[in-house]
Amino acid sequence: MSNHGYSPLTTETIAERLGNVDILQEKLGSDGSQWTSREVGDGNLNLVFIVDGPNGSVIVKQALPYVRLVGDSWPLPLSRSFFEYHALTRQAARDPGRVPEVYHFDEEQALIVMEYLSPHIILRQSLIEGKKTEGLGTALGNFCARTLFRGSDLHMETSRKKADVALFADNVALCDITENLVFTDPYFEAEMNRHTSPWLDDLVAELRADTEMKLIVQEMKTAFCNRAETMLHGDLHTGSIMVTDSDTKVIDPEFALYGPMGFDMGMLTSNMLMAWFAQPGHEASPGSRTSFQDWIANATSEIWQVFTDEFTRLWETERTGILYPSAVLEDQGHTAASRKALEQWLNTVWQDSLKICGIEIHRRILGLAHNADFETITDEERRATLEAQALRFGRELILNGNDRCATVADIFDVAGSFVLEDA
Amino acid sequence: MSNHGYSPLTTETIAERLGNVDILQEKLGSDGSQWTSREVGDGNLNLVFIVDGPNGSVIVKQALPYVRLVGDSWPLPLSRSFFEYHALTRQAARDPGRVPEVYHFDEEQALIVMEYLSPHIILRQSLIEGKKTEGLGTALGNFCARTLFRGSDLHMETSRKKADVALFADNVALCDITENLVFTDPYFEAEMNRHTSPWLDDLVAELRADTEMKLIVQEMKTAFCNRAETMLHGDLHTGSIMVTDSDTKVIDPEFALYGPMGFDMGMLTSNMLMAWFAQPGHEASPGSRTSFQDWIANATSEIWQVFTDEFTRLWETERTGILYPSAVLEDQGHTAASRKALEQWLNTVWQDSLKICGIEIHRRILGLAHNADFETITDEERRATLEAQALRFGRELILNGNDRCATVADIFDVAGSFVLEDA
Repeated sequence: MSNHGYSPLTTETIAERLGNVDILQEKLGSDGSQWTSREVGDGNLNLVFIVDGPNGSVIVKQALPYVRLVGDSWPLPLSRSFFEYHALTRQAARDPGRVPEVYHFDEEQALIVMEYLSPHIILRQSLIEGKKTEGLGTALGNFCARTLFRGSDLHMETSRKKADVALFADNVALCDITENLVFTDPYFEAEMNRHTSPWLDDLVAELRADTEMKLIVQEMKTAFCNRAETMLHGDLHTGSIMVTDSDTKVIDPEFALYGPMGFDMGMLTSNMLMAWFAQPGHEASPGSRTSFQDWIANATSEIWQVFTDEFTRLWETERTGILYPSAVLEDQGHTAASRKALEQWLNTVWQDSLKICGIEIHRRILGLAHNADFETITDEERRATLEAQALRFGRELILNGNDRCATVADIFDVAGSFVLEDA
Repeated sequence: MSNHGYSPLTTETIAERLGNVDILQEKLGSDGSQWTSREVGDGNLNLVFIVDGPNGSVIVKQALPYVRLVGDSWPLPLSRSFFEYHALTRQAARDPGRVPEVYHFDEEQALIVMEYLSPHIILRQSLIEGKKTEGLGTALGNFCARTLFRGSDLHMETSRKKADVALFADNVALCDITENLVFTDPYFEAEMNRHTSPWLDDLVAELRADTEMKLIVQEMKTAFCNRAETMLHGDLHTGSIMVTDSDTKVIDPEFALYGPMGFDMGMLTSNMLMAWFAQPGHEASPGSRTSFQDWIANATSEIWQVFTDEFTRLWETERTGILYPSAVLEDQGHTAASRKALEQWLNTVWQDSLKICGIEIHRRILGLAHNADFETITDEERRATLEAQALRFGRELILNGNDRCATVADIFDVAGSFVLEDA
C-alpha cells in the first residue's frame, strides 16, 4: 500500500472527511456539523479519536506513518491498520462480542471506525487502581481458547488457514518490533533500552551474562518466528484490554500474526503478574493491597481454567481441521488417545507460556516499552526493588518454570518466594 | 492462475510451440523442424519430454491439471509448476550447480524448460541395481545444509523470508498430498491405501492400534504444517535425485514449502534405509548385496556428517538472520553458548528426522505411493518379509529413535536388529 492520498485526521477535519459515511451518520447523527471530537491516543503508535454526535459516539483509530512514541525517525507502515481490521473481523467471528464492533474501514486512510466502549477503562489502569472486574477470567479464558483454537489447523479448513498465514506474513514491521523489543534488545545494550538506574545495573549485567537463559529466550524467539500455529492477538497485555466492573473487551490487535498459542497466553499471564508485583508500590498503607493481589492471582487462575475447559470443549466438538483427525483417533475407538493428545497440546501451550511470561517481564523493565504498573511508582528506589523481584522471578520462569510450575497457583507461589527474599 | 490458454504439449506440437524461444534455439539449434522429442515422464504427476536438436538436448516438464498416477478424477492445480520454478531458482542460488539449470519458464503453460542431465539415472534405480555414486553423501549433505540454512531466519533478511513463507503458503494442493498421504492415510483404512496382502495384514492392524505411535505421528504432522523454519525441497526421496557414478543432482522440488528442516533430512534418510532393507530382494545370490548395504549405510553417514559440518560452517559465517543474533552471543563473548545453541538446533533436526524417517517408511509400504525398492521384488512373500522388517523398524524409530540413535551408525544397527529377528 502506498501512502498516496493518505492524510492524518485532525479534530478539525474529522467531520468533514467522514461525514458522508452512512454508518457514521447512523451512529452519530446525519449532520456532521453537530459532531465533536477529541484525540485521546495514549498508546505508542496511533491517532485515536472519540467522536460524539447527537445519536452516540464512535472511536476513529488511524495509523500514523511512524511510531508515535518515538516520532518520524522511526517509520512504521500504515498497513498495520489493514492487519488490525482483518484481525478484528476474525476475532469477532471466533468469539462474538469480545472485540469492538467495526463500523467502517478505509485502507488508504489506514483508519478504522469502531464501537466506542464506555465506561470502560484500560485493564492496566484498573489494576493499578485496585479495581476488580467481575468475569475477567472467564472472558479472557474464553477469548483465548476460541481465537487460538479456531484460527488453527485444529479447526480451520487448511486452504483458508494457509491463506491467512500468507496474509499476516506481510505484517513484517510489527513482527519486527516484537522480534527486537521483546526477544533481543533486553539481552544486550541496545540503544533504546532503559532501566531504573543505578539500582538495577548489577542485576541487568547478571541477566545478560546468563547464557543458559538467553538460549532459551532465542528458542522462544524461534518459536515466535517459525511456529505458525494460529492467528495471535500478538500484543495481549493489560493495555490491550478494556474493562468495567463487570465487562471485558479486547482491543488493538494490530500486531496480529500467525504464531504459537503460548505467546498470547504468556504475555497475558505476564502482565497480570507484573500488576501483582507492582501492587505494593500503589498501596495506601502497608499491606492494603494484599487482598487485591489475591484477586489478581485468582483471576489469572480463572483465565487458565476457563481457557483449558473451553479449549477442551472445542477439541471435542470443533476439531474439523487437518491435525489430529478423528479418522486416526475417535473413529478407531481411540478416545483416550485423543484426550491424551489434547493434554499434550495444552501442556505445550503451558510450557511456552511460562517462558514467554518471563521474557515479557524482562522486556517491560529493561527494554523500550515499560509498563505503567511500575512506571507510576514515583519512588525510584522502591520501584527498582519491585522490578528486581519481577526480573529475578522472570529468569526463574524461563529457566525452571516447567519444573516448578504445574498450575497458576504454583506460579504465584514462586513469585511470592522472590518477594519474601527481600522481606 | 486460471487454466485459460493452457494446453498440454505433445511430441508433435512441442517444436512448433517452443520453437520461438531464444534460449531453446540456442540450446537445441535454431531450426525447430530438426528437433525430436519423446515423452519420458515416469513420475506420478507430470509430462516430461526430452527434446533433442543438433546443438544439444533439454528437458521440458509440464504440469497436468490432474495427478498423472490417478487420472483426471484427481485434479491438481497447474500452479505446482510455478512453485517448482521458484524453488529451483532459490536452490540454485543457495547451492549452485546442484539442481538442473532453468532455461525457460512459462507460467500459463505450467512448463519449465531445463538442463537435460545425462547420463544420469534416478538414484533409486541406481541403488536397486547396486551401483555406487562417488561423492553422493557430500553432494546431498551440502545441498541440505545450504538450502535449509540459507532459506531460514538464521540467514535470510526477515522481510524476504516472510514474503517467501507467504508465496509458498499457496502451494496448498501439494502440501495436502503430503499431509494426507504421509501423515494420515497410512494410519487408518484410507481408500487409496494398499499393502502386500495378506502377509502384512496383521502387522498393519497392529500399527494402526498403536496410539502412542500415532500421537507422535500427529505431532510431526503438526510440525510439518506449522513450523515454517525454511524452504524445504518437500519431496527429497531417492526418486528426486539423479546420479552418475560420480555426479549427483537434485530435481523435482514442486512440493516445496516452508517447514521443519528435519522433514527433508528425514525423508532422505528414510529412502536410503528402504534401499538398504530391500537389497536382499535384489541379490543375485544370498549375501551378494551385503557390501553394497554397507556402502548405503556409509553414504547415509556421510550425508549427515557433511550436513553437520557445512551447517556448522554456515552458522559461524552466515548467521545474518534474526535468530540467535551475535548481539546476544558472540558480541558479548558468549562463543561457547553460540556453539551450544548450534548443537541444540542440530539435535532438533536429528530428532525430527528420526521420526519423519519412520513415518516415511510406513507410508511407502502402507499408503498410495510405493517405492520401486520394494515393488520390484516380484516374490510377494519375500517382499512382505522385507517390508515387515522395515515397518517394525519404522515404528521403533518413531517411538524410541531419540533414545536409541545418537548417530547414523546407531540407526543402521537398530535396522539390522530387525533383520536379525527374522533370521
